[in-house]
Amino acid sequence: MTGVTRRKLFGLTGAGIALAGAGAAAGVGADRLVAGATEPAAMSAVDFHGEHQAGIVTPTQANLHFAALDVTTTEVAALRELLRTWTDAARRMTAGQQVTPDGAVGGAAQAPPADTGEALDLPASDLTLTIGFGPSLFDDRFGLAAKRPPQLVDLPAFPKDKLDPARSGGDLCIQACANDPQVAVHAVRNLVRLGFGTTAVRWSQLGFGRSSSTSRAQQTPRNLFGFKDGTNNIKSEDTDVLRDQVWAQAGDGPEWMTGGTYLVARRIRMHIETWDRESLEGQEQIIGRTKDSGAPLGQSGEYDPVDLDVGGAGGEPLIAEDAHIRLASHQTRNGVRILRRGYNFVDGSDGVGHLEAGLFFLAFNRDTRTQYIPMQQALSAKDAMMEYVQHTGSAHFAIPPGVGPDSSWGDGLFA
Amino acid sequence: MTGVTRRKLFGLTGAGIALAGAGAAAGVGADRLVAGATEPAAMSAVDFHGEHQAGIVTPTQANLHFAALDVTTTEVAALRELLRTWTDAARRMTAGQQVTPDGAVGGAAQAPPADTGEALDLPASDLTLTIGFGPSLFDDRFGLAAKRPPQLVDLPAFPKDKLDPARSGGDLCIQACANDPQVAVHAVRNLVRLGFGTTAVRWSQLGFGRSSSTSRAQQTPRNLFGFKDGTNNIKSEDTDVLRDQVWAQAGDGPEWMTGGTYLVARRIRMHIETWDRESLEGQEQIIGRTKDSGAPLGQSGEYDPVDLDVGGAGGEPLIAEDAHIRLASHQTRNGVRILRRGYNFVDGSDGVGHLEAGLFFLAFNRDTRTQYIPMQQALSAKDAMMEYVQHTGSAHFAIPPGVGPDSSWGDGLFA
Repeated sequence: MTGVTRRKLFGLTGAGIALAGAGAAAGVGADRLVAGATEPAAMSAVDFHGEHQAGIVTPTQANLHFAALDVTTTEVAALRELLRTWTDAARRMTAGQQVTPDGAVGGAAQAPPADTGEALDLPASDLTLTIGFGPSLFDDRFGLAAKRPPQLVDLPAFPKDKLDPARSGGDLCIQACANDPQVAVHAVRNLVRLGFGTTAVRWSQLGFGRSSSTSRAQQTPRNLFGFKDGTNNIKSEDTDVLRDQVWAQAGDGPEWMTGGTYLVARRIRMHIETWDRESLEGQEQIIGRTKDSGAPLGQSGEYDPVDLDVGGAGGEPLIAEDAHIRLASHQTRNGVRILRRGYNFVDGSDGVGHLEAGLFFLAFNRDTRTQYIPMQQALSAKDAMMEYVQHTGSAHFAIPPGVGPDSSWGDGLFA
Repeated sequence: MTGVTRRKLFGLTGAGIALAGAGAAAGVGADRLVAGATEPAAMSAVDFHGEHQAGIVTPTQANLHFAALDVTTTEVAALRELLRTWTDAARRMTAGQQVTPDGAVGGAAQAPPADTGEALDLPASDLTLTIGFGPSLFDDRFGLAAKRPPQLVDLPAFPKDKLDPARSGGDLCIQACANDPQVAVHAVRNLVRLGFGTTAVRWSQLGFGRSSSTSRAQQTPRNLFGFKDGTNNIKSEDTDVLRDQVWAQAGDGPEWMTGGTYLVARRIRMHIETWDRESLEGQEQIIGRTKDSGAPLGQSGEYDPVDLDVGGAGGEPLIAEDAHIRLASHQTRNGVRILRRGYNFVDGSDGVGHLEAGLFFLAFNRDTRTQYIPMQQALSAKDAMMEYVQHTGSAHFAIPPGVGPDSSWGDGLFA
């Protein structure tokens, strides 16, 4: 492994650092959508600065470490200071640097190292760090109740939910995506460490094999049902759709959220052993696409438009009434869409002979009340796929807009 | 992504397949040590055939999925047939093919697909599949008691062990390593699926960031303590040491194990939050190496020989009596060594505010009784690092020798 690493960057000035990665050179406000790598490329960095936070429409990386945290302090000043500290740390780590200039080995020998060190020899690996605020942050602890966005509702109970409180909720979230899992884990660990005394990890989830792509330059990946997932996802190139469906606009809610979005995280256990006993035809009918190419039933190419009316034998629609793509389709849902950015997971085994596997579903939308919630109500009530999945974790976060070189996460919220 | 994938290989003849990867071209008995990639290279395949199983001295890949299984049948013929089926499947998947020629989409529409499909578009990714037999397989169920190698002891209890039975033991193991986690997960899942009715998953562990290298061409990776790990590991180039310390030789035990080895798997939880509060100097004294370069204390380069006698201030040895590298060193242990091939892990959080992180330790040795066990007895009693780690899972497996194109795992055991 050669090239720019945390070690080699150590001691460079800010100007030098700005040239560290292809993404970093694009600068604030530039088109970050093309700044990151479109396929895993360990050497590159994604610009941390911008109108929106990175890690939403920037090209999906191969690995995820997601953490939800509870705030343990009652001092609002400590929370605000932590968000500033996190911003500085994230600005550095996403550029391939250590968490502080002293880092893992540059400080006093008698003091704990500032950086935990496991990413010392690793490049930026397209790391993005994205933070969010949960509904519970807006209770009476920090005087934020009046600033709670109306979009940031407590999610309702959906039919067939089997939520584990230990995998749900959280005052804050950190989404770390990178093309090296050790880089994502290092970033979360070091932010968690900076929060010691102020926050504590509530739950944490690793993921791999990005289950949706967010750029037309990316091949559509497959989920653990073996199907291409995210063919019709909103892509970074769809700027009009992003404005309409993803980014909070002025007037939508509190001004501090303009340019932000709302994240729904759902841990979806897949009963893969049961799925694997379903016939190929049955699987394709449940999804509404072919397994091979990913084409919608009745079409031949993955990206052919979905035709929900095409008829099959006997006059029944080829795409069944309870097929997943029919119920989730924007054609069915009055044009409503969401941006998905989920990851596959395997968390060991379930103790009764099966793998504990599934999809860690991450979706960004402009208004969860009118986008995710009605879609999930329809899916959980009617989707034929529900026989094979179970939602075991759930959380909702307001994702504030991006920051510039001189601003910090939380500036708008605490202004 | 371009090049040879499971999809493109579909339908090729055996001869065509043999040319699929750099490793495959080396053939049986050739030097597989240089056949695989030395750094992650998604396109390559590692030869499945050879005197020894792949996945031991072949270059360590970036990702691990390890599964321990219990045999649920009492029919020895079913077990033997499963090992043949597994061999055929592993031969295919390590070459970048689907689990059977029909695969995920080539079979009858009315039947469940033969392959689960999530690796359809992915290359071989240096996948290796390595299987082993646990002590419990040699009980009275299958008439194998007389064939149990004397080296395959039940591991003794070590001081400070806190073993979870749900993460320990197993009749069989499958170690899948690859440079794409989805490829490793796919391989384990499909072998587990082939075993339905014959075996069931007992426990399963994912890992990343290989914590030891097995080739001099690989950079030494860092563990979650932030230290380089495996500098003095046995490397694939050390053929004399491998013969003495890793490979079972004729006369060591039962003939069916000649060319095999013994695997000790230990899930080692690291209390990283406590470790992170230790000073840099303290951390370096516990390990016996510098954090920056990985040089032994008193030396300047990572690969400088360890000098256990070099004195520090006040006449005390610079490498403390309870330093990890002193206690684990072959200089202290009468020349005894082990081949390590572990992986870092983060399994979410522990429910009390910390990450559930650590090292999934995998070590191969010729005789666990005289190599791993006395080493671990010394470490668990004296190692200063024990304050920061806890062994939470444990298993021991006999790893049979490799197979050729016309033989199968288990041929020797059941001969």
